[in-house]
Amino acid sequence: MDVISTSVTNLDIHDIARISCTYDVRRYYVIHPLDTQRKLIQDILNYWQKGYGATYNSDRKAALDKVALIQGLEETKEEIRKETGFSPTVVTTDARVYPNTVTFRDLRQKLRDGSPYLILFGTGWGIEKQTMLECDYILEPVYGPGDYNHLSVRSAVAIILDRLLGEVWWSR
Amino acid sequence: MDVISTSVTNLDIHDIARISCTYDVRRYYVIHPLDTQRKLIQDILNYWQKGYGATYNSDRKAALDKVALIQGLEETKEEIRKETGFSPTVVTTDARVYPNTVTFRDLRQKLRDGSPYLILFGTGWGIEKQTMLECDYILEPVYGPGDYNHLSVRSAVAIILDRLLGEVWWSR
Repeated sequence: MDVISTSVTNLDIHDIARISCTYDVRRYYVIHPLDTQRKLIQDILNYWQKGYGATYNSDRKAALDKVALIQGLEETKEEIRKETGFSPTVVTTDARVYPNTVTFRDLRQKLRDGSPYLILFGTGWGIEKQTMLECDYILEPVYGPGDYNHLSVRSAVAIILDRLLGEVWWSR
Repeated sequence: MDVISTSVTNLDIHDIARISCTYDVRRYYVIHPLDTQRKLIQDILNYWQKGYGATYNSDRKAALDKVALIQGLEETKEEIRKETGFSPTVVTTDARVYPNTVTFRDLRQKLRDGSPYLILFGTGWGIEKQTMLECDYILEPVYGPGDYNHLSVRSAVAIILDRLLGEVWWSR
């Protein structure tokens, strides 16, 4: 039960940035506590935001421009407070159910109230316990028809943002 | 407008295999016409199905066991005919709208009829025109609230299978 840091996966940055663009997410914060990993992430961002990548693929630049690199959760909340004037409601996601679990339907409603929400996704073995306990809500897990629940964080973000912010495809 | 082959992305195999497992897809066919690319894909599959990966991470083995490597669309249809006794209904996906476009809601209904369906996803610049023309249905695109429609194939598969095969989260 040691708390660890995961190393960054290049495609997590790309895929989640492209999903954030598709669903009009205001900002995608990549949170990492280690200087060495933040340096690596910054190199990737520079390539696509300012370097050759930006001219090679402008759609990718548009997506990567959504990304902000930051060292911790508190700093992220502070940034959002500075930018919007409000403390964000913090929602974590997990493959397990908790007492303060909120449904997709409820959170979809809440997100329309105009205030900032910060939705946390973790890689590796999930988000550490203290963060889970301190958040405002925990979003219910994504269930498929099978027993298998080991989606990549990239897939989880895609499915969850589609459920929370996607079009109402089921009733038209 | 030249027809090209894309090179394989390792994480496409992993992510889409894990999504297929989550949504109880019968088989995930990785179709590639080039021997060199199929050789590379087979090496990856061997590592996770039979090599060190299989003992290191059994959840990943379970997912990768869904994958079948094959050289073309006709061969895939023939495999499905052999395995199920029926020709599959072929559905393609695209970020654009076509005359024979089917909605998510309609396809979700159709998939319950018990017959085999083959849903095609392409990478690169999309699926070539002849294949699009010869399929039975084209699934409507995934729209987010924004104008941006450049999801990775991994993200598109996650969202589309959740809409077609996921739980009815919106009415409970």
